[in-house]
Amino acid sequence: MTSSIELPAAPTPSMAWDAWGNASERAPLSESTRSMLEAALGIATTHGPTRRVVGGPRLRRSRLAERRRRALEAIVGAEHVSTDDAVRAFFLGGKSTFDLLARRSGAVQNAPDAIVFPGTAEEIEAVLRYCSEEAVAVVPFGGGTSVVGGVDPVREWFDTVLTISTRRLCTMTNVDEFSRTATLQAGVTGPQAEEMLGRHGLTLGHYPQSFVYASIGGFAATRSSGQASAGYGRFDDMVESMSVVTPVGITHTGRAPASAAGPDLRQVFLGSEGTLGVITSVTLRVHPVPESTEYRSWWFPDFATGVGALRVLAAHSGRPTVMRLSDEAETAVDTALSSEHAADTPTGGCIAIATFDGSHADAMVRATDADAVVRLAGGEVLDADRARRWEHTRFDSPYLRDTLLDVGAVAETLETATSWSDLSRVRDAVTAALIDTLTSEGTPPIVMCHVSHVYATGASLYFTVVFAAADDPSTRLRVAKDAAVTASTGTGATVTHHHGVGRDHRQWMPEEIGHVGTTLLRAIKSAVDPAGVLNPGKLIP
Amino acid sequence: MTSSIELPAAPTPSMAWDAWGNASERAPLSESTRSMLEAALGIATTHGPTRRVVGGPRLRRSRLAERRRRALEAIVGAEHVSTDDAVRAFFLGGKSTFDLLARRSGAVQNAPDAIVFPGTAEEIEAVLRYCSEEAVAVVPFGGGTSVVGGVDPVREWFDTVLTISTRRLCTMTNVDEFSRTATLQAGVTGPQAEEMLGRHGLTLGHYPQSFVYASIGGFAATRSSGQASAGYGRFDDMVESMSVVTPVGITHTGRAPASAAGPDLRQVFLGSEGTLGVITSVTLRVHPVPESTEYRSWWFPDFATGVGALRVLAAHSGRPTVMRLSDEAETAVDTALSSEHAADTPTGGCIAIATFDGSHADAMVRATDADAVVRLAGGEVLDADRARRWEHTRFDSPYLRDTLLDVGAVAETLETATSWSDLSRVRDAVTAALIDTLTSEGTPPIVMCHVSHVYATGASLYFTVVFAAADDPSTRLRVAKDAAVTASTGTGATVTHHHGVGRDHRQWMPEEIGHVGTTLLRAIKSAVDPAGVLNPGKLIP
Repeated sequence: MTSSIELPAAPTPSMAWDAWGNASERAPLSESTRSMLEAALGIATTHGPTRRVVGGPRLRRSRLAERRRRALEAIVGAEHVSTDDAVRAFFLGGKSTFDLLARRSGAVQNAPDAIVFPGTAEEIEAVLRYCSEEAVAVVPFGGGTSVVGGVDPVREWFDTVLTISTRRLCTMTNVDEFSRTATLQAGVTGPQAEEMLGRHGLTLGHYPQSFVYASIGGFAATRSSGQASAGYGRFDDMVESMSVVTPVGITHTGRAPASAAGPDLRQVFLGSEGTLGVITSVTLRVHPVPESTEYRSWWFPDFATGVGALRVLAAHSGRPTVMRLSDEAETAVDTALSSEHAADTPTGGCIAIATFDGSHADAMVRATDADAVVRLAGGEVLDADRARRWEHTRFDSPYLRDTLLDVGAVAETLETATSWSDLSRVRDAVTAALIDTLTSEGTPPIVMCHVSHVYATGASLYFTVVFAAADDPSTRLRVAKDAAVTASTGTGATVTHHHGVGRDHRQWMPEEIGHVGTTLLRAIKSAVDPAGVLNPGKLIP
Repeated sequence: MTSSIELPAAPTPSMAWDAWGNASERAPLSESTRSMLEAALGIATTHGPTRRVVGGPRLRRSRLAERRRRALEAIVGAEHVSTDDAVRAFFLGGKSTFDLLARRSGAVQNAPDAIVFPGTAEEIEAVLRYCSEEAVAVVPFGGGTSVVGGVDPVREWFDTVLTISTRRLCTMTNVDEFSRTATLQAGVTGPQAEEMLGRHGLTLGHYPQSFVYASIGGFAATRSSGQASAGYGRFDDMVESMSVVTPVGITHTGRAPASAAGPDLRQVFLGSEGTLGVITSVTLRVHPVPESTEYRSWWFPDFATGVGALRVLAAHSGRPTVMRLSDEAETAVDTALSSEHAADTPTGGCIAIATFDGSHADAMVRATDADAVVRLAGGEVLDADRARRWEHTRFDSPYLRDTLLDVGAVAETLETATSWSDLSRVRDAVTAALIDTLTSEGTPPIVMCHVSHVYATGASLYFTVVFAAADDPSTRLRVAKDAAVTASTGTGATVTHHHGVGRDHRQWMPEEIGHVGTTLLRAIKSAVDPAGVLNPGKLIP
């Protein structure tokens, strides 16, 4: 029942250095979007102040000393250490809006001094040992999709900063079809995981917006949450065990589906964002590929009514696989921009979509039961094609952000989670903070929100804000984001539901985890990374 | 929707100092059990070598210095500090079989020097600060139901050891019916929790065998798992947030149903067994009291066939609330000892029981679906009264252990968890280790096993071993237990699924969590308990 296999994975796709994804996937701005931007934000969309740099980036020169290069080459092989600008340009950091604005600025980019591509956990262990002895900073790098500065080559007090790419760790090393677990190496991307599991009739069911580029190690290191989290769980729920290389040795955490053998040390490395070690492989709970998917779209007269229905559905044993509820503002924008106007499109209110994976019969029954819950809660059942269209384009929004930047509009997303009781209050507080701050800065924004991850006791909130870039959009974005996060954490909500902490949310960590939590995190960091070389400037307050 | 309430809880029930529970609940040994013991173990059950001590325990004298008593009284009040033997006798430790044998030995008992009964988290903080300054050991004590030496007053290098009882922390301080969470103080017992929640139409659904006596704080500190874990989850799954008093301050961990804000620090305090702090209150995910419970009993020709069926049911969205499968040996003993012989009692094979909580319709549908899975897997549906009888007597086994000791038979339980693929192999290895060890010691045992907690990827195994006490039963038990745990951990299974680590499993922790894990746990301990006063000799390797 257990087989040990090595499957070659497709090469990891690389993204453009200054934009999301691959150029071939980018679509031009639709006329309806263009009109909306001009009307709502008052910008001329024919030319924006934030155009991309022509001719590639200028990078800070590599400071890797020759003797260090030789030492690293002795560990991983000369062909797996690179100081080439053409390679370093792909490892400048992640893809936050701040990152994109910085890369469009024309300034010299803060690239890592070298990229190391190890092939085994033992090579990573040797690299970390060497870097600890030499006081060289190390940034673990998976798919590079961080939107919180999680893979920035921060130098701090170190004279050299390396990036370790996990892309050569790209195989499925074990699948246990009876226990329904599979062991995937850290560099496996979302599509590669689904392809390798699919050959066994299995799926992980993890579909975050970063799915196409992000890696298994990154999902674990950041507590990623996929769009199908209602059905398949968050990524941290999927982890049966994992292997992590720390500067003080390799650890394998997790010996059983559940244990009472003290604190759960998996939960220390999950969410550690490269500050405690390099995750090299993860044993995951997998599922048979569903026979069928049923789609639903629902309408509610207002956000609170929709939240009431989602709350009931989230606590239901047959709950949806995907469930998302847009607020009034997001619903209005989606409706205005939609190229297909269904006959049943209502005016006002909030639209939700849901999917139900399962056997034909089971998916149908659950969807029908959910319709009844929706009607009882005051909602209506709409044409389900909306849910199919959402699924078809669900990884596309990051491309739109680049296209908007091209015409001078900044689009940013922020997210949090809280209890059902506090959900509307947090939505109102964050929306008001974004509108008030940007309006007083002279760039009144469009602010939209949706619920995208549901739990029995609460849910996440995902905000999209779009505003005119004008001059100094980075500062304007920083001020607005600070106000929004302060508004959500001020209500007791978490600083991040699934984007992670990185550099951008680090200032809120003392409030999030308190004095004792801060003491604990620092002690954990010192224990496994005594030289402090791992991913400086991120997460640990 | 959120209300802040204070409900008086019934006084915490105390157990006999040398036996489980209350005398009024004890039943005499049945004739069928007596005959089986005589036949299988060759013992004369009229008088055993392990009788209870008459006239109460002899305790080691309290060494609490007068100035320390005054300091503690200044913190919690004079009436809440006790050095009376009559009180200290109830805090000798937990209720492992080793504990019961030691208390029947007639030897002087190692009691704590004093018991402190604080009324607030702030009082606990002051006690921990004082004990850290004075180098006084502190044992946090909830219901005292540990079966792994988790609350023993271990002195180590400290001259004084106090026990802190949480029994005065006994209210529900908040209930949020919309989000379905409730905040319970640490000293609330299982029945008190259900009574307080029941007034709101809610249930926690946590029914471990220790339910009647154990406390909310203890459930959290030991990662308790209840019999209804398939339906309601393990206790650690139920924890939304918690408050913990450590020697370096009070911490509140958990701000949302889910978060990506770094390592999950709840998971550091869950399972910390009083070594990192005193848990003072826990916010729990609760459920509406189910409308109905459907019962099922199933028969399988052998253990592996039963495991196959449980595996399918465990991965099912409509899975049972309770699901237990006895192996051939346990089934044979249960059948032989049963006072009611149903007409459909099969010869040989394995019997499973299940319950399904839900609405009338939902419970019925899930049970009927499960019957179909069972038949497809090669099982048969039996009279469901077996499941009702099991439920009726499900908290009684610990009483039987005392009655068996009275007649010279030692009964011990051991547990582990592993993947579905390894389950039968681990069962065989542990069973063989117990039989071989005890037989070679001259006391051939009865060894039985059941699966009692199921997960999508694996399950727990619970072993019961019964053997003749003869002389020196403690040593014999120690040797057998060591062999059994070594056999299960040797296959890669966890050292404990729900009993916890305490003193008794501590020696296996380095193997369970490895070198890096040990380094981490010690660093965490030093960070929050720099003086090392909290629960010495437990958990941390």
